[in-house]
Amino acid sequence: MTRTDNTVTISVDVMGGDNGAIDVIPGLAISRQRHPELAFVLVGDETVITPILAKYPNLKDCTSIVHTDVAIAMDAKPSQALRQGRRTSSMWKAIEQVKIGDADICVSAGNTGALMAMSKFCLKMQKGIERPGIAAIWPTARNESVVLDVGATVGADADMLVDFALLGSAMARALFGLERPTIGLLNVGVEEVKGLEPIREAGQRLKDAAYEGMDYIGFVEGTDIGSGNVDVIVTEGFSGNIALKTAEGTAKQIGSYLRDAMTATLRTKLGALLARPGFNALRMKMDPRRVNGGVFLGMNGTVVKSHGGADALGFAAAVDLARTMVINELGEKIAAQLAQAGRGSVETDPTPSPSVEEDTPISEAL
Amino acid sequence: MTRTDNTVTISVDVMGGDNGAIDVIPGLAISRQRHPELAFVLVGDETVITPILAKYPNLKDCTSIVHTDVAIAMDAKPSQALRQGRRTSSMWKAIEQVKIGDADICVSAGNTGALMAMSKFCLKMQKGIERPGIAAIWPTARNESVVLDVGATVGADADMLVDFALLGSAMARALFGLERPTIGLLNVGVEEVKGLEPIREAGQRLKDAAYEGMDYIGFVEGTDIGSGNVDVIVTEGFSGNIALKTAEGTAKQIGSYLRDAMTATLRTKLGALLARPGFNALRMKMDPRRVNGGVFLGMNGTVVKSHGGADALGFAAAVDLARTMVINELGEKIAAQLAQAGRGSVETDPTPSPSVEEDTPISEAL
Repeated sequence: MTRTDNTVTISVDVMGGDNGAIDVIPGLAISRQRHPELAFVLVGDETVITPILAKYPNLKDCTSIVHTDVAIAMDAKPSQALRQGRRTSSMWKAIEQVKIGDADICVSAGNTGALMAMSKFCLKMQKGIERPGIAAIWPTARNESVVLDVGATVGADADMLVDFALLGSAMARALFGLERPTIGLLNVGVEEVKGLEPIREAGQRLKDAAYEGMDYIGFVEGTDIGSGNVDVIVTEGFSGNIALKTAEGTAKQIGSYLRDAMTATLRTKLGALLARPGFNALRMKMDPRRVNGGVFLGMNGTVVKSHGGADALGFAAAVDLARTMVINELGEKIAAQLAQAGRGSVETDPTPSPSVEEDTPISEAL
Repeated sequence: MTRTDNTVTISVDVMGGDNGAIDVIPGLAISRQRHPELAFVLVGDETVITPILAKYPNLKDCTSIVHTDVAIAMDAKPSQALRQGRRTSSMWKAIEQVKIGDADICVSAGNTGALMAMSKFCLKMQKGIERPGIAAIWPTARNESVVLDVGATVGADADMLVDFALLGSAMARALFGLERPTIGLLNVGVEEVKGLEPIREAGQRLKDAAYEGMDYIGFVEGTDIGSGNVDVIVTEGFSGNIALKTAEGTAKQIGSYLRDAMTATLRTKLGALLARPGFNALRMKMDPRRVNGGVFLGMNGTVVKSHGGADALGFAAAVDLARTMVINELGEKIAAQLAQAGRGSVETDPTPSPSVEEDTPISEAL
């Protein structure tokens, strides 16, 4: 979709997430308050949407509704979701708005596996990219980093890791406004181990290619993710997902240590009371709702996945992220990056085959 | 080695670690102070060891020295270490003390890759176990868990994951005194993804086998590591290493957030001062020196790897861990667990082939 005015149109899977419209619509209202240029295509059950929507006057003139009462269950398997909800579900139709050009980007809090399968099936892989990646925005000691893939694809060969580096650098340019973000390949300390060949090969290729628009700095380790030493961290999806969830778990664990320590004695309780503004600042900094949204990259159109348990504030963060990606022309930056790397083309594919979608077996999208 | 009295003899690679003997020997003194039953075989340069040893009277009657002035560099590649230091280095000779029965267990702060390669080459894989694992003791919100493999082997098939479950459960029994520790297989949320077959297969096998001495509870995610929901977490070495280092990085990151928050204003500074005992307790709880030591499992003898940068207190923690493993008969527990699983035998291998070591190419130990 070519953007003709300043409006950013976001298609929203209103039935995704643990609470669906109850959290999603208030989230949109929060985000619209911050960004008046936003417009929404709400996809879901009109009878549910309309009464909730009526409570938010600031959404009145910027929303349209695409009705469907088919929802994808939060625990549906991807194959099941595709069989039962393809072309009919709120998830599918929200993604489809991007494909047909009625929205710039799509946001859903629906289940990750189903959302990824439908995105691949509906949008198709971008020319020059073999497999999709999910990019997480990772808060660091310095600022934020992009980490991908955090779970789209298990296992990755050198080609895929180089693809992720190209996609991730374009995203970091869009998100952080950097000319040449630094890129690191996640590795373990011991280099001389079987199984690390794809990482070494990808590293060698990134070094040799010296792509414009990125500054490949070499291997990094797990400790470098939180430090913010590097703008983009590239890894395969299994270890990326483990890293993301381990960090979440560690943050919770330290939070529980901290609570125990501060409630241990009357003195620590008093101290904690006095230091409350500091603890509040810390809590805000670590609030998972502040940074919410995984960005699905590598397809012909971008989908932002909000945490399924996100409340209105959390969903608004995902919507804000989607907006930033559109405003800063993520799609164009990716296309340019791929073209420069000889991996795709800025031109539209000259031989579109509209029948492909019909012919693609579901298993291919999984 | 059959233990004939209450003495626990630990062979120590005195030249391993960032500072070698300067941190190692004081560490032994601390550990001996706590545990009078400890005896040490110090392997390293006698001219360096003797003057330092003289400063610690409590080590006088419980140490012997095996002299060598060959040290493995902290940045040596495993193959290089094996070529240059096999049979001659302090690392090799410390491991060898376990093999020849002069020590119950070995501790080294030397480089992980070299130590693992030498351990495999010297001690050989245990009957019934294909690849070694490094087990980390992971502090959790509840207590501690065992996580393996954190970096010995990249990639793992179902067999290897089952092996790790057997080794890890024996270790948890030795370490935590549990009859049937709970075991979880680390996985990502989306099950229906290519590449997860080995994990699913291992899960099915653990479920079907219902081994004595362990309680297999199914898949767990990264968030479950820090929560302490499960006693043993099994994963392949790449993702295990990434998880471990990501947790370290996250802890540092939150520490830096906390410092910033507490020094932001006069009020938070005063509060933090008042709450200092709480912060001290937190610091102690999160002190990486308190829990130090990766346990190399799956070979004919156990090696404990201390952090290379450990100071005396950190090294003492690794020594204490080694002692616990011996006192609680880790070796016997592993042998029994493997025998019960039909994976090995409690008996000594009836057909020892002393020439194997000479014939094994170095590449096999990498």
